Amino acid sequence: MNEIRSAEILCVGTELLLGQIVNTNAAWLAREMSLLGIYSFYQTVVGDNPERLASVLEIAAGRTDLIMMTGGLGPTQDDLTMASAATFAGRRLVLHEPSKAAIQEYFHSLGRHQVTGSNWKQALLPEGALILENHNGTAPGAIIEFLHHGRPVILILLPGPPSEMQLMFAESVRPYLQQRTLKKLRHRFIHMIGIGESAAEEALIDLISAQQNPTLAPYASEGEVMFRITQSCATDFDPDLTEAVLAEVRCRLGDFIYEVGPRGMPEVLSDLLVAQKKTISFAESCTGGLAAAMITDLPGASKIFKGGIVAYDNQVKQDQLHVSAATLREQGAVSEACSIEMAAGCRHVFNTDLAVAITGIAGPCGGSSEKPVGLVWLAICDSHGCRSQKLQAGGNRSRIRRVAALYAMDLARRSLLS
Amino acid sequence: MNEIRSAEILCVGTELLLGQIVNTNAAWLAREMSLLGIYSFYQTVVGDNPERLASVLEIAAGRTDLIMMTGGLGPTQDDLTMASAATFAGRRLVLHEPSKAAIQEYFHSLGRHQVTGSNWKQALLPEGALILENHNGTAPGAIIEFLHHGRPVILILLPGPPSEMQLMFAESVRPYLQQRTLKKLRHRFIHMIGIGESAAEEALIDLISAQQNPTLAPYASEGEVMFRITQSCATDFDPDLTEAVLAEVRCRLGDFIYEVGPRGMPEVLSDLLVAQKKTISFAESCTGGLAAAMITDLPGASKIFKGGIVAYDNQVKQDQLHVSAATLREQGAVSEACSIEMAAGCRHVFNTDLAVAITGIAGPCGGSSEKPVGLVWLAICDSHGCRSQKLQAGGNRSRIRRVAALYAMDLARRSLLS
Repeated sequence: MNEIRSAEILCVGTELLLGQIVNTNAAWLAREMSLLGIYSFYQTVVGDNPERLASVLEIAAGRTDLIMMTGGLGPTQDDLTMASAATFAGRRLVLHEPSKAAIQEYFHSLGRHQVTGSNWKQALLPEGALILENHNGTAPGAIIEFLHHGRPVILILLPGPPSEMQLMFAESVRPYLQQRTLKKLRHRFIHMIGIGESAAEEALIDLISAQQNPTLAPYASEGEVMFRITQSCATDFDPDLTEAVLAEVRCRLGDFIYEVGPRGMPEVLSDLLVAQKKTISFAESCTGGLAAAMITDLPGASKIFKGGIVAYDNQVKQDQLHVSAATLREQGAVSEACSIEMAAGCRHVFNTDLAVAITGIAGPCGGSSEKPVGLVWLAICDSHGCRSQKLQAGGNRSRIRRVAALYAMDLARRSLLS
Repeated sequence: MNEIRSAEILCVGTELLLGQIVNTNAAWLAREMSLLGIYSFYQTVVGDNPERLASVLEIAAGRTDLIMMTGGLGPTQDDLTMASAATFAGRRLVLHEPSKAAIQEYFHSLGRHQVTGSNWKQALLPEGALILENHNGTAPGAIIEFLHHGRPVILILLPGPPSEMQLMFAESVRPYLQQRTLKKLRHRFIHMIGIGESAAEEALIDLISAQQNPTLAPYASEGEVMFRITQSCATDFDPDLTEAVLAEVRCRLGDFIYEVGPRGMPEVLSDLLVAQKKTISFAESCTGGLAAAMITDLPGASKIFKGGIVAYDNQVKQDQLHVSAATLREQGAVSEACSIEMAAGCRHVFNTDLAVAITGIAGPCGGSSEKPVGLVWLAICDSHGCRSQKLQAGGNRSRIRRVAALYAMDLARRSLLS
């Protein structure tokens, strides 16, 4: 068996070419390839057109070991990825009985007993291919191993809808590929808050540039500072070398690390509240409900979250959160005093263990030299009293609001740990 | 001058190949090409590697009139898109004095007076190219017109950061391309709510399949039902034929249309409130602050939004919104009665012209046969009284929450228009 060293991601779909949807599949698969230690040098998008599909397959097969294709496996006439791939690999399409039965079964489970003719098309699959079951839809996937001008190439076909593609990859493709890469990679993900990406990189630059085994590298992630430690192993039983690197990162930047693992801030905070059997509430001004919305996006939030007040208007801060008129008049709504009064009022109103307040200037207007756009005051009250924190966030309105909500959750997290 | 008929989008960046960022530039540019009437048959992603860059340029130049490149124009050693493109087009890099001055100016405006050597690299640009100013950063763009094996090809280089790329495209590239396409396209965008995409398509199928001039087509958009009418004109002064199609769509589906233009629901509602000098507040259960967060994401929301209560816990519904214990006990939190009491309580608390309430089951757990996951009760109270609406949303937790928030805003919009 030949080792897979390089992959090309090939996404099929007119809606991608028209810009109607963003190609999240390419990014998701690219990340998976990287986690498997397979180099990915190219990504291609092409429409549902047999000549152009054949031409990009020819190009890809000439420069890579593995072609990861997504899209164009639907039941309509337009969907011709499976047929194009079979032709390219020199295979006939044959009826795959288990897939036919699975499609029948799927429609029955939806209460539809008439399966239309076009749906059976999805059971016509390349002869000799490894067929992949779809547990989120009707289109099976396929793995075709073949020789292209005498060189072994693997073609993997996955459906386009992300929920179908990701499940099929996890269930069938990842284990298949793990058997075909010589390297076993062991990853650790480190999430930080309270430090900028460049400052964190600077503090770790000698570890990053060493690039031995394991390696340490920044891991770009939406609005988050993350690092990845990767150890390349010969077997699953190699001693774990990531722990020593992690320990060194902790020594230098431990104060900023809130998770070593897969969870984001809302989940970390939520899990901590569940573990400590505590409840939380939010009083939000500039974030306008965003912190509450992020916490309640997690299933089961009702265990730990009782409610929140979006106090956008100053009158609401007074009436609902009992912020004093004097504070608003003398120090303004974006002030340490106001944030503390908001948090105290919020805890009183909701009777929660913790209450967190956020008040700031999200912009783009409304800033001054004394209180510039991006200035945010955060406060937390718990049974030990109240504490505040000043934040100066950068970026546009959406980013300032998001950063403010994350820092507010971090304030709660630190309070639970102290 | 040759007409530009086809374009290929070529994005350069290792962070794309590693899946660290999603390729939103490709989708954005693809949409612009489509709006300009330029066919886009391929998209390619490649890393910052001179050999691979040259090979994809060779492939692209052999199959398209226009290559739209983004990324790799930064000041570091890794950024070699401009040099690779110049080499491919047979041009030398020469110092472009106006760009050098602009870079100096940009750093001065940031208060930095030392410009490092690597920044000057961005002023080395292909001889004879049309240079595009960057008003959001330091990297200039370029347009190179050249012959590839005797065939005219246009290469347009734009920076990778979306804010820089989009502004440069709008200021310099769009006008340039409009001069080089024979067709002038006139577009109308129709936004709908209250009807599913397939039901809307079915109602318009004869207009869609006619495909004359103008054409009508569904326009996929995140969680929204949208259609696009496109008229192809010889000149800007051709009579507007889109109006008649729009009128027909209005006849059939007018009840569901909330915007003909660029605005989404939060903006439409917000503009209407501003125009009528009215204020709004939200009482949210299952959406947990999302509706308030969406409204306050718009700058200037304080004119129309006073505040909201996230009443996740039933006790909060009673204490803060004065929902009666009997209603909660006898009909439950997800009921018409509860939604109306929430809205009435909310209007009382915030003293706003309109108050909207949302209570439902976002799942994945907590549903029953009587009250399945996705069931949402919405209510609105204004000076004329209270009305409610039942919604059965599909999809996962995030989608149900988003749809509930949008329908709640629509309820407010309809109330303002009635």
